[in-house]
This record gives sequence, C-alpha cells and structure tokens, in this order.
Amino acid sequence: MIEITRPTLVVDKEICLRNIGRMTEKAAKYKLHFRPHFKTHQSAKIGEWFKLFGVDAITVSSVQMAEYFAANGWADITIAISLNILEMEHINRLAATIKLNVLVENKETASVLAEKGSQQLGVYIKIDTGYHRTGIPSSRTSTIDSILDILSANKKIKFKGFLSHTGHTYYAKSTNEIFSSHFDALLKLKKLKARYKINYPQVEISLGDTPSASICGNFDGVDELRPGNFVFYDLMQHSLGVCEIEDIAVKMVCPVLAKHVSRNEIIIHGGAVHFSKDTVLNTDGKHLYGRIAIQKDDKRLLLDTNNYLSKLSQEHGTLKVTPANFKQIKVGDLVEIIPVHSCLTANLMGHLLTNDGELIKMMPRY
Amino acid sequence: MIEITRPTLVVDKEICLRNIGRMTEKAAKYKLHFRPHFKTHQSAKIGEWFKLFGVDAITVSSVQMAEYFAANGWADITIAISLNILEMEHINRLAATIKLNVLVENKETASVLAEKGSQQLGVYIKIDTGYHRTGIPSSRTSTIDSILDILSANKKIKFKGFLSHTGHTYYAKSTNEIFSSHFDALLKLKKLKARYKINYPQVEISLGDTPSASICGNFDGVDELRPGNFVFYDLMQHSLGVCEIEDIAVKMVCPVLAKHVSRNEIIIHGGAVHFSKDTVLNTDGKHLYGRIAIQKDDKRLLLDTNNYLSKLSQEHGTLKVTPANFKQIKVGDLVEIIPVHSCLTANLMGHLLTNDGELIKMMPRY
Repeated sequence: MIEITRPTLVVDKEICLRNIGRMTEKAAKYKLHFRPHFKTHQSAKIGEWFKLFGVDAITVSSVQMAEYFAANGWADITIAISLNILEMEHINRLAATIKLNVLVENKETASVLAEKGSQQLGVYIKIDTGYHRTGIPSSRTSTIDSILDILSANKKIKFKGFLSHTGHTYYAKSTNEIFSSHFDALLKLKKLKARYKINYPQVEISLGDTPSASICGNFDGVDELRPGNFVFYDLMQHSLGVCEIEDIAVKMVCPVLAKHVSRNEIIIHGGAVHFSKDTVLNTDGKHLYGRIAIQKDDKRLLLDTNNYLSKLSQEHGTLKVTPANFKQIKVGDLVEIIPVHSCLTANLMGHLLTNDGELIKMMPRY
Repeated sequence: MIEITRPTLVVDKEICLRNIGRMTEKAAKYKLHFRPHFKTHQSAKIGEWFKLFGVDAITVSSVQMAEYFAANGWADITIAISLNILEMEHINRLAATIKLNVLVENKETASVLAEKGSQQLGVYIKIDTGYHRTGIPSSRTSTIDSILDILSANKKIKFKGFLSHTGHTYYAKSTNEIFSSHFDALLKLKKLKARYKINYPQVEISLGDTPSASICGNFDGVDELRPGNFVFYDLMQHSLGVCEIEDIAVKMVCPVLAKHVSRNEIIIHGGAVHFSKDTVLNTDGKHLYGRIAIQKDDKRLLLDTNNYLSKLSQEHGTLKVTPANFKQIKVGDLVEIIPVHSCLTANLMGHLLTNDGELIKMMPRY
C-alpha cells in the first residue's frame, strides 16, 4: 500500500481498464468508430491504457489539449469545441503534423476557416439536438447549406459530417429521460444525414455523452461515439443510473483533521482546490459533494448516504456522519471520498496516483 | 497590449499593489502585525510585491504551500489549517529551517505534536467564533487548558495565542452583519486573552477574513491580521459590499466562439476549468458566474448586470446579454469576465499574466 499523508486522487487502474474495455466492446458491437474524449483524464499515461484496446483516434476539448496529446503521439484528434478563430495559427500548425478535425457552427467561423486554413483539415458542423449550449438546430438547413458553401471555397477543408453532444442527458431525472433525449437526437441527426448524403455520400454522425453511450442500445445512423467521463465515472453518473458505484475508478484519499461531536461533523483536508463544487442531491434533499468510504477491519466499507461530504471551503471539507460512524473515524485516519464530478476533480488536482503508487501526470496548465 | 488567443487570467499589478498598500496601512494604523494569507495568489512573484511593503510574515493553507513559500525565501509562516498529524515529518523538516506556526484544536493532535515535535514550533489554538467549521468554542476553556497542558510537555513548542477565521462574514446579507460577526468574534477573543494573559503574558489574538479586515474599524485586543482575498478581491467581495468593482485586480480574458440570437446567448471559451463554480445572486435572482466587460471605441466598458456569465460547462461559458450588447459582441472578440471567486479561479489556472504580458507562475500541483 502506498503511504498517503495529503489529499491524493487515487485511480484504480483495473476499474479504468474495465470501463475502457466495456465501452470499446460496445462501440464495436454497434459498429461505431470509437473516438473517446480525453478531457476527463487529460493524461498521456492513461491515453496509453486506451491504446491497449486499439484506440487510435481521440476527442479533446481545447486546442491546448490537442497540442498536448499530439506531442504525446496521438495523430488523429477532433477538437470538440466550436472553433476559436483566434487560434487559427495553432490549428494550422497542428494540422500540418496530424489528422485534425474541428467544429464549426456559424458562417463567421466558416469564413475565417475557408480563408486561413492552410492545411488538410476535417470539419464537423455542430448540431444542437436539444442541449441548447452550442450548435445549429437540425432544422436550420439553410445555415448549414451556407456554411458548406463557404467551406467549399477551400479545397483543403473536408466536410466530415455532423457532431452533437446530448449534454442534457446530464440533467435527466430518470434513465427514461436519457433514452428519450438520445432517441430524439438520433431522429434529428438521421434526418440530416439522409438529406446531406446525396451530395456528401461520406457524411458521418458523431455522438458524444457518457450517459447515453453507457446505457442506450440503439445507435441507428450513428458512425462515431465520443464519450469521455466513463473512464472514471463518478457520483453524478451514478445518480443518473448510468454506472454502479463499483465502476467509479477514482477516489480522493483525505486525512482527518478534527472532529466536532456537538454537530457530528468531521473535518478533512480536502476542499474546493481538490474537489469540484458540483453536487448531487442526497436522499435527505441536501447537496452532497462526495460519498465516504472508510477502512474497517482491514476492509473497505462504503458508508451509506447518511454520511457524506457536506461542505467545502478552499482546503477544508466537512463530513456529516452518523453518531456511530463519528465514533469510528479518528483524527489522523485517512478516509476515501468518491467525487461527484471526476472530470473537474482530476482537472483540479493535475495528477493522480495509481493503487501501486505510480504518479500519473496530467496536461500541464501552461 | 499582449496578444491573447485563449482563456487567460490577467492581473492588474497596479490594482494589486494598491490593495496591498491599503491593507498594509490599515494594519499599521491599528498596530496589527500583518501576516497576509497567500492562498489567493499562491505565487512567489506576487509574494515579492508584498515585500515592497515590508511584509515578512505570511499565512498559508497547507503544508505543501508552506514548503513552496519557504523554498521561495519566506522564513516566517503560519499554516492556517488544523494540523494534519500525518504530516509531522514535513512539519519538523520545515520548522528546522524557518519560523513555523501551526494550528491545534484538539487533544489528539496536541498529543502527537508534543510527542513528535522535534523543532522549535509556534502553536496557535484555533477558536471557533461562530463560523462552525473548525476550532474550539471560546467558552470551552477546559479543552483549551487540557491542550495547553499536553503541549507544555514539549519545551520546543511555544504557545503563541488564539487564532480565528470569521468565515461566516462571507455569507453575510449586509455589511451590518459583517460588523456584528466581527464584534462578536472580538468580544469572545478578548475574553480569552484576558483569561490566559495571566499565565501566558505574550498571548496573541490573530484574526483573518477579508470582509472584516476590509471594512471594520475596531480591532480592540487583536494582535495580528491575516486576510488573503483582498490582494485580488472579486465579485463575491463586491456583492458583500467589501470592495468596489475597481478594486478587483483579476479578470479572465475569453474568446467569443459563437452567438445564439434566438436566446441572446453568447458562447465563450471559458468554463469550469477556468472559473470556479461559485456564484453570487444577480439582480434578477439568477446565479451569476461572472460579470462582463467589453472593449468599445478603444475603451473598456463594464456591462450592467443584465449581462452576465450565466452557465459553465467544462470548457464553455454562456453569456446572457441584452439584445443591444448581443449585436456589439462579435465572434472572435475577446471579452473580459470578472470572476466571482478569485482564489479558486487563480487556483484552477495555475498562472496569471500581468498587463505587460509577464507570466506569473503559481505553486506547482505536485
């Protein structure tokens, strides 16, 4: 066992490999090109774990992240955020060395791309299937036509297809809602595909969110799958009914600093610089920042939801626990906290430790 | 002007120096030892700016941060988080080279400290004056007596006094509430001081939060002031009535990626990996993640609260704006976002850029 004295994000490699294996199999089963999103782990080392399953194409969420993974040997990358025209130089530089795809969702960006794109570049048009963050509603084919027209002026640019992120599945109140958002997206994207297949026979549909990728069983018309969070999963996915607690591959190990018996609260070193401020609703209707596991008789014991990480300040976390568990947990103990949002938690830490004590560095911040 | 193409946290050095200058003067005016908290900027470079004002003693929020600043020349540090007994080795190592103070709030920790403290070490007893996160209620003098008794067994340990963080001022609904929490804390701490002065004539009172340090004008009985956030300030402090907008020294400069006229929303590159998920309530009762400033006719224009950063996902931010401002802001523009919580925002970024384009690195994450 590794010796831990400070808040440390520990990743269970076995669970990660199982999660990657399952999603790879699922993509294969439905004949989908698997292009996992690497924004969750942001790590060259964990990228290597995906290679064990034959993954050779990835998704990232910024040009900076594309540069990092390109420098670490990845040669087929989609940057799944609407193209930032201020970064055209970086994009041209990257596209000169790897297969790069970018996202366009308006005419302004398409024009800059057509004018300044100096390298072979794949372009997806971002479709809004109901999340209402970015993208063009699938009904607005006149805008899509205009963008395609603008892009056609530059022969180095290849229209690849339509890309969507059914992000509203993260706010679903039930797995039924996830299924229904997913089907709705499928219908819209299939219709688009049918329309554009005539002039663009190679047109692809690329879909992305972890909830639907994990639990849905119909990917009719879809060509590519881009989930990210599934590599670690987290309490948010668990609360959506998308994964089991046993599928969550990361935990923050935190030292116990103090106990306050009058309010059954335990103070840990582990705060907002370690966890994200995302919450899920607990069974008692309160916000929960994490669930607690302790060591008991040399066994790991997951405490029920009457025990949880209830407050965060910059470095401190407050555990609300039952009187019985209050007695069990001692100052100087290490407790494990299962995080609500693994992507943001890993991003905050910038590194992870495997069960064997191997340091896994993530993308540097500058 | 520096060229920015990606989300970049820019710090205005002039404003920082003014903030540091004002707080230094205030501490001097009330004859308080000034020991600013460095958890907000976490930066050796910005630490140098404090030295210009004669600051030579600091507060940090973790042993790791103490190690970082000790390595960067700071020789008098208080670690203002309850002592983590698992880090005794690190603490002894640090205390061998600098003047180090730690915090104790229970007998378990005091015992470990008395047993394992091998170097000269200052100890404060953490008092809970009403924030109810950590610390001993000031009325529980029997616990304090026991701790002092335990610590007295180790002659290298010097009891320095009582330390408190009136953190509930961050949740005040009015400046009156800040004044009242501060006064309440003063009364409790003065009483303690009077009681323990008999046996410990040198006993000190150390106080910490930015809200009361900024606006209160009575520090009767206080010996030391430890605010941190004031170096940058932020929208949270502004909403508390603690600073002016013009006192906020940091802003995130973000590229505009897309516009959605049907909902008057503008999408920026700038999300939860850049900003913290902390919010303040806007005038319309909605949660606000930041306010917006734009360039207009070569002038910086702060938009009113009908325009704000309304949503965050990992990399995307959504600006809700008025129809008039929607027209003004273009794809490819840079907008400035004033953050809600500067400590967590800076922590996420890990670096800042000055107005002159100087890179300011923060404490590395491992």
